[in-house]
Amino acid sequence: MVDPVQLSLGDAEALAAAALAHSGASDASARATAKALVAAEADGQAGHGLSRVSTYALHARCGKVDGRAVPRVEQVAAAALRVDAGHGFAYPAIDAAIAALVPLARTSGIAVAVLHRSHHFGQAGAHAERLAAAGLVGLVLGNTPKAMALWGGRRPLLGTNPLAFAAPLTDSRAPLVIDLALSVAARGKIVAAQKAGEPIPEGWAVDAAGQPTTDPSAALAGTLSPIGGAKGAALALMVEILAAAVTGSAWGWEASSFFDDQGGPPDMGQVLVALDPGPLSGGAYAQRIGVLLDAIADEPEVRLPGERRLALRARAAREGLTVPGELHAAIRALLPPA
Amino acid sequence: MVDPVQLSLGDAEALAAAALAHSGASDASARATAKALVAAEADGQAGHGLSRVSTYALHARCGKVDGRAVPRVEQVAAAALRVDAGHGFAYPAIDAAIAALVPLARTSGIAVAVLHRSHHFGQAGAHAERLAAAGLVGLVLGNTPKAMALWGGRRPLLGTNPLAFAAPLTDSRAPLVIDLALSVAARGKIVAAQKAGEPIPEGWAVDAAGQPTTDPSAALAGTLSPIGGAKGAALALMVEILAAAVTGSAWGWEASSFFDDQGGPPDMGQVLVALDPGPLSGGAYAQRIGVLLDAIADEPEVRLPGERRLALRARAAREGLTVPGELHAAIRALLPPA
Repeated sequence: MVDPVQLSLGDAEALAAAALAHSGASDASARATAKALVAAEADGQAGHGLSRVSTYALHARCGKVDGRAVPRVEQVAAAALRVDAGHGFAYPAIDAAIAALVPLARTSGIAVAVLHRSHHFGQAGAHAERLAAAGLVGLVLGNTPKAMALWGGRRPLLGTNPLAFAAPLTDSRAPLVIDLALSVAARGKIVAAQKAGEPIPEGWAVDAAGQPTTDPSAALAGTLSPIGGAKGAALALMVEILAAAVTGSAWGWEASSFFDDQGGPPDMGQVLVALDPGPLSGGAYAQRIGVLLDAIADEPEVRLPGERRLALRARAAREGLTVPGELHAAIRALLPPA
Repeated sequence: MVDPVQLSLGDAEALAAAALAHSGASDASARATAKALVAAEADGQAGHGLSRVSTYALHARCGKVDGRAVPRVEQVAAAALRVDAGHGFAYPAIDAAIAALVPLARTSGIAVAVLHRSHHFGQAGAHAERLAAAGLVGLVLGNTPKAMALWGGRRPLLGTNPLAFAAPLTDSRAPLVIDLALSVAARGKIVAAQKAGEPIPEGWAVDAAGQPTTDPSAALAGTLSPIGGAKGAALALMVEILAAAVTGSAWGWEASSFFDDQGGPPDMGQVLVALDPGPLSGGAYAQRIGVLLDAIADEPEVRLPGERRLALRARAAREGLTVPGELHAAIRALLPPA
C-alpha cells in the first residue's frame, strides 16, 4: 500500500501531459487530453480520469492512437460539421468541434458536429456542459466497444453508449448536466468486483447463455444489462446508430478495446448537437427555466442530476486531488528517468 | 357486450373525421387528426388511436382545443423552425412542421422544428418515421401532463415524455423506429387495472408517500416510476426541458389533462430534429447500416424495435380494423342524428 499523493489540478495536468507526450503525443494533444482527464477526476468521475493515463499512453505507443493527429473540421452542410479526429485522442477533436459548433448553432438555431476516427471521449457531460456554458442546449453522445446485446440477443454488440445533455439555467448557476450510460452498471464496477472476489448485484448483467448472474467473471463473459429492459436496449441502439452509422464510424462490435494494445484504432464516433433556446422558444426560455427552478425549490428532497459532481469539483478546486499512490506511481513510471 | 365492428382504414378515417368535424374541428384539422389516430390504431397503438376520438371531440367542444386553428410555421434561424399550433390539434401542426423540416434538413445537414401551443401528439414514432421515409434520421419528443416525479421527489411534475427515433435502413425495408415513454408502464394500463379491480406489478408506480405500491388507485394518486431509476428520471427531465423550455410551452405540471374538460388548453411542446446522414457520414451511412443488418441477421432471436408494429400495420392494411363495439358506438354517438 502506497500513500496517496495530494496534487494541485495544475500539477496533475502537467504530470498527465508529460506522461502522454513522452509516449508520443504532440504537446497540444497531450495538454488537451490531460486537461480533460483531470477535469473528470475533479468531478469524481475516476473512471474517465487519471486511471486512463496508462492505457492512453499504451495506445499512443502501440499505434491504436496517433498522438500527433491534428483534427480536421469540415463543414459538410449549412449547419453540419464533420470532424476527422484522425485516430488521435478524442479531446483535441472535441475542442475543435465545439469551437466551430458554438458560432454555427447561434446563427443556425441548431447545428451538429459528428466525429469519426475518434477514441474514448471520457465524460460526455463535460462536453455538453461547455455548450450550455455558451448559452446553448447541448446533446452529446458516442458509442463504445461492445458490452450490451441487442434485445433478445446474447452476443455483446452495442456499447454502453453514454448520452449527455446540458442546459443553461441562470447566469448565477452552473448548467444542468445529465450524463449517463445506458447500461445498469459500468463495466469497471464489475471488473472491480471480480478483482475483489465479490458477487455483483442481480440485474447488472447476464452470462453468455443470457441467464442472470451475480458472478462477475460470468458477467464479463456475457453482456451488461441495459436500463429498463427493452427500452434501454432500444435507446442504446439509437445512440449506436447515431454514433456509428451517422458519423461513418465503427459499430461497438467492430471496435478494438479501450483497455489493451490489441487491434487497430477503435474508430469510435461521437455526435454533438447544439440548440439555441432563445429564438426557438420565442424568448421564453429563461422564464420557463425560472418556473422549473421554483418547482424544484418547493421539494427540498429533489436531487438534480450533477449536484454531486459540482460539489466534488468545488472541493477539488479548493483542495486539489488526492491521487491513489499506486496510480500516481504508474503515471510517473511513464516519464523519462530523472 | 356489443359485437366488434370491422372497418376499412378509409371508413375508420371518415368516421373519426366526421365525429371531430361535427364537434367543431375544421375539415382539414379533422382529416389530419383522424388519419393519425387511425394509423396508430392500425399500428396496434390503441392508446393513441380511436379511443382518443371522444376526448378530442370533448376538447374541441369545450375550448381546450381550437379545432379551427391553422398552424403557423416561422423560420427563426437558418436551420430552425418555430411552429405555433394555435392550441389546435397537434397533427396538422406536425404535418406543417414536417413539410418544412424535410427540405431544410437536406440543405442544412440538420434542422429542428419546435411546436408550442400544441396538444396530445399521439404516436411519436410515426412522426419520426415520416422523417426517415424521407431519407433523414429523425428524433421526435414531447412532454405530456404530469405523471412522474423528479428524482427524490414525490409530486408528479414530469410527463411520461415520449421519445422516438427513426432511421432509414435500405430502400426495400421500412425504417427502423424506436418509440418509448420514459415511464415503466403507461398510465392507461394502471387505469385499466383499477377498472378491472386487479393489482399492478411491482415497479410500475409509487404511492403519494413515495412507497412502492401494487394498488392501482394508490398508484394513480402517486407517481409513475421511470425506467432505470435515476437514469430514466434524468432522461424524462431532459425531454421535459426540450419540450417545455426550449419550445416555450407548459411544463408537465402546468398542463391540463388530456382526458377531461377541466382547465384551458394543455399547451404542450414538441421537438422534431432531422439529420441528413449522407453528408454527415461522408457517404458511409448505407454501408454502415448494411453491416448492422448483417449482424442482426446472425442472431435470429434478436427483435428490432417496431417489428410487431409493422406486422400489425400490414394486417390492418389487408383486413381493416376490428373496432370494439362500445368504442364504435361512442364515436357514432358524436355524429349528428341520421
